[in-house]
Amino acid sequence: MTLPLEAAGQDRSSAAAHLHHQIQGFYARQMRLLDGGEIEAWAETFTPQGVFAANAHPEPVAGRDAIVRAARAARDALDAEGVRRRHWIGMIDIHPVTDDRLLVRSYAMVLEIPRGGPVTVHTHTTCDDTLVHEDGQWRVEHRQVLREDLATEAER
Amino acid sequence: MTLPLEAAGQDRSSAAAHLHHQIQGFYARQMRLLDGGEIEAWAETFTPQGVFAANAHPEPVAGRDAIVRAARAARDALDAEGVRRRHWIGMIDIHPVTDDRLLVRSYAMVLEIPRGGPVTVHTHTTCDDTLVHEDGQWRVEHRQVLREDLATEAER
Amino acid sequence: MTLPLEAAGQDRSSAAAHLHHQIQGFYARQMRLLDGGEIEAWAETFTPQGVFAANAHPEPVAGRDAIVRAARAARDALDAEGVRRRHWIGMIDIHPVTDDRLLVRSYAMVLEIPRGGPVTVHTHTTCDDTLVHEDGQWRVEHRQVLREDLATEAER
Repeated sequence: MTLPLEAAGQDRSSAAAHLHHQIQGFYARQMRLLDGGEIEAWAETFTPQGVFAANAHPEPVAGRDAIVRAARAARDALDAEGVRRRHWIGMIDIHPVTDDRLLVRSYAMVLEIPRGGPVTVHTHTTCDDTLVHEDGQWRVEHRQVLREDLATEAER
Repeated sequence: MTLPLEAAGQDRSSAAAHLHHQIQGFYARQMRLLDGGEIEAWAETFTPQGVFAANAHPEPVAGRDAIVRAARAARDALDAEGVRRRHWIGMIDIHPVTDDRLLVRSYAMVLEIPRGGPVTVHTHTTCDDTLVHEDGQWRVEHRQVLREDLATEAER
Repeated sequence: MTLPLEAAGQDRSSAAAHLHHQIQGFYARQMRLLDGGEIEAWAETFTPQGVFAANAHPEPVAGRDAIVRAARAARDALDAEGVRRRHWIGMIDIHPVTDDRLLVRSYAMVLEIPRGGPVTVHTHTTCDDTLVHEDGQWRVEHRQVLREDLATEAER
């Protein structure tokens, strides 16, 4: 079992700060991969059986292969339009469950950038992730995205 | 007297990193409460005599009860319109005053999300907070919000 | 030679967390100076021979004096229009090169705030910085900004 928080013999507050740093960097790199069209490398940030669930999708996408296919189709559609999307993750709230499992709640802002502009906010979502630490890195085991412009009154 | 920074015997740079982590999490949770309509829980993130001053208000709102009433009225008006607001705090700059008192300067972006979209940036503000550490947590003793679209030339 | 990471005898993960805290604060203060029109103080956050390169400029601006002149001209033009810009840096990814040199990749969102509103997203850029630690602080030695709405297909 991996013990990322205890391995270095840190005290708890130092470990919490380090975790915050790790998770912030994780999201920065993960979203850069997606935004840059590196779909396979992005999918590696999910566990092999990882699940991507979103209220904008008819049903959850399960497993890296299916995640790649869905992301590739979305990307191709945007490329055909000449539009880029950029994902900002913010307002991150980290809840350790065990030493190698976290619940992370965040907000995501998705910007849309057509050639020549103007830049618009395509959507705003909440993002509830279960992250697990394996092979020396954090990965998404389960992601629940809620597009708030599409949410039902009960979901909001 | 609470000594959140010294209690764990950390050195200064480790304490600064931990403080950064704490404050980032504080704002994430505080804004989630407000955005989620949990007005009473949100008001608990202010001290009992906490002050919320804003150039968009005719005068500062002082004390948790008054803060609850003002936030509730604002929320009810938005609910009536079917509009959600989401608050992003960013560009956080932390200035410790004592071990249990901080000045925190930040930017805030307020997004507006009507059912079906489109998402727009409702306003952009600066947010200058005095945070105090009491009962094991940080709370807002004084908040000064400046809506920059409404600011006078001298304020900007 | 300055050894900001080793000086305090911290272990690596604590040093990484402290670095994250320092860099986040650096960008918050740097952008506040620019946004607040304190151009000379902002230029001090670059090294004396610092370079600001951007695809929106015909050629890189090199040296603090030239950086001040370019920023002042841009600011005067905005002042004449009565428009304010606010820079958000996010999705920060820090790559230490040596103890006193970092590569930092980030996203930047530039908001535009006319008197009376509405607030819009003026542009979205990537920002690739080389930061060096000198005289007890981090400074930009080289900045490469890519405005994504103006980027060529190859650049995107």
